[in-house]
Amino acid sequence: MCNICTPEIGELLKDAPKNWGKWGPEDEVGSLNYLGAPQVLAAMASVRSGKLFTLQVPMADPKGDPVWPGRRGAERYQIIDEGHWIGGKGPQFPGGQHYADDAISAYLQGSTQYDALGHVWYDGQLYNGYDAKTTIGGLQKASVQAIAERGVVGRAVLLDIARLRGKPYLDKGETFSHLDVLAAAAAQKVEIRKRDIIVIRTGFIESYYSAGASAFFADFVEPGLTYSPELVHWFHEMEIPNLVTDTMANEVTLDPVSGVMLPLHGALMRNLGVAFTELCNLSKLAADCAEDGQYDFLYVAAPLKIVQGTGAPVNPVAIK
Amino acid sequence: MCNICTPEIGELLKDAPKNWGKWGPEDEVGSLNYLGAPQVLAAMASVRSGKLFTLQVPMADPKGDPVWPGRRGAERYQIIDEGHWIGGKGPQFPGGQHYADDAISAYLQGSTQYDALGHVWYDGQLYNGYDAKTTIGGLQKASVQAIAERGVVGRAVLLDIARLRGKPYLDKGETFSHLDVLAAAAAQKVEIRKRDIIVIRTGFIESYYSAGASAFFADFVEPGLTYSPELVHWFHEMEIPNLVTDTMANEVTLDPVSGVMLPLHGALMRNLGVAFTELCNLSKLAADCAEDGQYDFLYVAAPLKIVQGTGAPVNPVAIK
Amino acid sequence: MCNICTPEIGELLKDAPKNWGKWGPEDEVGSLNYLGAPQVLAAMASVRSGKLFTLQVPMADPKGDPVWPGRRGAERYQIIDEGHWIGGKGPQFPGGQHYADDAISAYLQGSTQYDALGHVWYDGQLYNGYDAKTTIGGLQKASVQAIAERGVVGRAVLLDIARLRGKPYLDKGETFSHLDVLAAAAAQKVEIRKRDIIVIRTGFIESYYSAGASAFFADFVEPGLTYSPELVHWFHEMEIPNLVTDTMANEVTLDPVSGVMLPLHGALMRNLGVAFTELCNLSKLAADCAEDGQYDFLYVAAPLKIVQGTGAPVNPVAIK
Amino acid sequence: MCNICTPEIGELLKDAPKNWGKWGPEDEVGSLNYLGAPQVLAAMASVRSGKLFTLQVPMADPKGDPVWPGRRGAERYQIIDEGHWIGGKGPQFPGGQHYADDAISAYLQGSTQYDALGHVWYDGQLYNGYDAKTTIGGLQKASVQAIAERGVVGRAVLLDIARLRGKPYLDKGETFSHLDVLAAAAAQKVEIRKRDIIVIRTGFIESYYSAGASAFFADFVEPGLTYSPELVHWFHEMEIPNLVTDTMANEVTLDPVSGVMLPLHGALMRNLGVAFTELCNLSKLAADCAEDGQYDFLYVAAPLKIVQGTGAPVNPVAIK
Repeated sequence: MCNICTPEIGELLKDAPKNWGKWGPEDEVGSLNYLGAPQVLAAMASVRSGKLFTLQVPMADPKGDPVWPGRRGAERYQIIDEGHWIGGKGPQFPGGQHYADDAISAYLQGSTQYDALGHVWYDGQLYNGYDAKTTIGGLQKASVQAIAERGVVGRAVLLDIARLRGKPYLDKGETFSHLDVLAAAAAQKVEIRKRDIIVIRTGFIESYYSAGASAFFADFVEPGLTYSPELVHWFHEMEIPNLVTDTMANEVTLDPVSGVMLPLHGALMRNLGVAFTELCNLSKLAADCAEDGQYDFLYVAAPLKIVQGTGAPVNPVAIK
Repeated sequence: MCNICTPEIGELLKDAPKNWGKWGPEDEVGSLNYLGAPQVLAAMASVRSGKLFTLQVPMADPKGDPVWPGRRGAERYQIIDEGHWIGGKGPQFPGGQHYADDAISAYLQGSTQYDALGHVWYDGQLYNGYDAKTTIGGLQKASVQAIAERGVVGRAVLLDIARLRGKPYLDKGETFSHLDVLAAAAAQKVEIRKRDIIVIRTGFIESYYSAGASAFFADFVEPGLTYSPELVHWFHEMEIPNLVTDTMANEVTLDPVSGVMLPLHGALMRNLGVAFTELCNLSKLAADCAEDGQYDFLYVAAPLKIVQGTGAPVNPVAIK
Repeated sequence: MCNICTPEIGELLKDAPKNWGKWGPEDEVGSLNYLGAPQVLAAMASVRSGKLFTLQVPMADPKGDPVWPGRRGAERYQIIDEGHWIGGKGPQFPGGQHYADDAISAYLQGSTQYDALGHVWYDGQLYNGYDAKTTIGGLQKASVQAIAERGVVGRAVLLDIARLRGKPYLDKGETFSHLDVLAAAAAQKVEIRKRDIIVIRTGFIESYYSAGASAFFADFVEPGLTYSPELVHWFHEMEIPNLVTDTMANEVTLDPVSGVMLPLHGALMRNLGVAFTELCNLSKLAADCAEDGQYDFLYVAAPLKIVQGTGAPVNPVAIK
Repeated sequence: MCNICTPEIGELLKDAPKNWGKWGPEDEVGSLNYLGAPQVLAAMASVRSGKLFTLQVPMADPKGDPVWPGRRGAERYQIIDEGHWIGGKGPQFPGGQHYADDAISAYLQGSTQYDALGHVWYDGQLYNGYDAKTTIGGLQKASVQAIAERGVVGRAVLLDIARLRGKPYLDKGETFSHLDVLAAAAAQKVEIRKRDIIVIRTGFIESYYSAGASAFFADFVEPGLTYSPELVHWFHEMEIPNLVTDTMANEVTLDPVSGVMLPLHGALMRNLGVAFTELCNLSKLAADCAEDGQYDFLYVAAPLKIVQGTGAPVNPVAIK
């Protein structure tokens, strides 16, 4: 890539809209503020059959977890199990019960996860204008704990771009825009309403499980949404609180037009405060939606309340 | 304690009911099977005002997490933050965005968490009769992943025992029975229905935050439900899928009658397959219920999908 | 590989010598007992010029550590540094000093390391006849702590097999025997004495740094010593206390004759109690020996005193 | 403490000597440069009987490790052991050997350890003048790796201050000076020579094991050397390369005269480049010295080569 012709993201987004200050100088949850009690109540109407779907990928899989290059998959360590009693080391509690215990070592952005609004920034400022130095040693501002304390409940719509394009999963680096999202909605006969949670399926993470890790990471470039001023405007106008996808970064790795890496993290998350939920496995949900034709649902998710965390794992629930 | 007169738990529970085999020989989620689509749909009726509550305690708090003695609180490690760019070490991505990343090391039973049904056992068998040797090196059977893949959605009822007894939190070792639970329901004017998720507040974890860790752990004995054949019978008859409390073990540490440690783990979890959600902070939810008089709500929770895990952290959501 | 024709190691070694009981039923350090005060004193004669060499490979390298497939390289986490003060979070101590702190997460066999004598076994028994069930949850017997409490000091001889064969490093799977070791000694004009520490250079780990990780791990089979009854006899007769090499397993991965994996771990470590020091980088030491012609030296090493550890990292020192 | 009257350490040490630049602008090992080949050779004369002592405290002890408040003791995790084969999960290697593996999570300053010269600083500069910002995210300069690559070999002298004062261990906060060190040498009839490694016993860490952790940490203030310009001058003149003690910080926690915390870290380590080895257990060595009257010995130590580490665990070896 030619760094000379790639603009700084601050330059690229110099006219882009911001929601800073909109919910007060201390706000840390951004566009999730769009999800008030009326939205919660309205979302209940999307529950029609009582079907449930959980959207997290497996975590600490002995066969390996899919994580962004440079991160490391979660590791689970056994602390105690029946072996301790077989080996004569198990504690003898009154009544004699046995138990198993374990521990985990994991990147907080190493599974299906919510980004803190302060996870990515530029020009020395996070979402809502917080100083980038507040990130040192842990997020003093706009950490994932704020999102976790609040919880996320609302009406969500699945947009199945892979299905729209007639393929099991998008190609590496394949892009789409909000117009494709709208086209998917039209094809699926589902309405995207203001303040809906947008759930986009590319099928990409499914290829990790079907094609294997080697193929998945070879020449690694994720497919995804790609930046345009119009797309940002659409998210802004529609007051989208939360973008949920089945890729690690919710957008194409490199914007093919500007060359900027992950510009929607700047435009949507840092500037508008849109919450990002990444790396969901949407395969079962999408298959069910295709079968019963219902693409809207009640979405309930609350990441772990990691104090000062840059993100936290989550297992979102879709209720149809 | 007199170990001589303390019976083995297998002896104590020799006539106790079991749900083994009820949902097939491969079942790993037990009484959560009681929560089918009809229960999910019915639960929506408990959503009346659109208020949300998240029930996890903070995790990886630099001031320390409350964990069972012998376990260790979660630790968060910073991987990268604005300091790296100040020090000249931050990566230079196209477009120039900065970011923060972190990792965690934690006991899987070290925060608000779901126990796997295979977490505790006796007489060499887990829930559904699985061999205890299947726990070695990670739960091959009845791991928390099974619960996490399913998700938990249903009507829940808060029973505020601390409020019933007119105290901010129960004393150490203070016990109560299902009759107290029913008395709380009556006092609160809420009906406990079959297949309801039972959420019990003792206030105990709140004392960790108000009175401090030293006081909390001094002569550590949790208050809680205490074993009786009648209590087990009640859970069985009522087909309770999930017991949620604000203590680490969901029951009094030592049964004052038999001397057995944590017998409800055997009677309810191992034998009946009741899911245990432990260490929730119910203070805000309870205050709101006391104010608006609505003690039932939609409960949505899905622990992390830890492969072979003995438990997994969770941030349950209550929607009123 | 044909498992049908590969014998069980107990069959392969059924007539092999054992040192079990030789140093008492509670011994946990095996052939290191050969290194008594006379050997320590005699070893001082190998110090002639005052040159030092440290033999560990770098650990927790951000570029990655060389570890056996299935293990994971060490990770270092920053706890605090000058960034905390820049960000306003650093503690203010009387007098105002600043400091940096960090932590590590590592496999205990994931760097240059001593194996505990109980690290590998067969037929249900460890070195000295200890029951294999004593390994459950941590080595109750023959842990690395025993070696660490003792320390290792003696005369060592470097045998440079790569140099003998005129190559920078042996090929993958390339083997050699004790006769080659003796040939190297002859070529180097150095005498191998009874109770000498044997230090063997294959150059293999150097290829990790020169050729890169991908090439190193492609079709991974380490070169090394290969099993024969005569080789075992030679170690036994020579009373070799410690075998030190620059490969991860101190022997060829698969014995090409029998098909057995790592048989010298059984024959030398489990049966004779020979201490294994693995994954040293011998490049600087070997270059110096080639230059000054002195291939013997004082060897001083003490792994970390990891309680119940299966192994522990070490940074051995060679003094010429 | 009165912070108003406590000077900044830069003020306290404004006239103190520095060795910055003495060994070049790229030097990272400081006073260890005093230990050249002549010193190594001379040290061999201190080996008279062939007795060995290892000086590390046990690490990852299930009963707990002694660590500075705010740090956490090392934890060892079992990865695999005989239980896996009992449970039917163990891998089946050709020949059928079994093995045990484990991992560790530890503070790098959480056991007997070498401080990197860049571990503590003031006024924005580390040893040799390196910018404090080079510590961000890992020590770019003066990390422990530099010391580990070099290794430490020299003549050492044990000064037993506890014995001098006729007590098993010094009281909390009890101080002594270089004059006491000289008095101990005189009482022990041992000469301290230029460039000797100074090993000081207070007995303090022994009290952790004899009196228990609660007593050890109650009103925690370590005993130790205390600052004076004369003491710094003595270390400078004597060209002491390495200060080794049995406390966590090698000096009294708070200087009772100035109120400054750990001023010798500034005066000796940062300014003079004296290597600090902390938390050795000297009980066996001291008992032996008292018995045979030999207080000098060959000291050999090499911490782990932790890349960018602020410190690294070590198991020093004393050879008499």
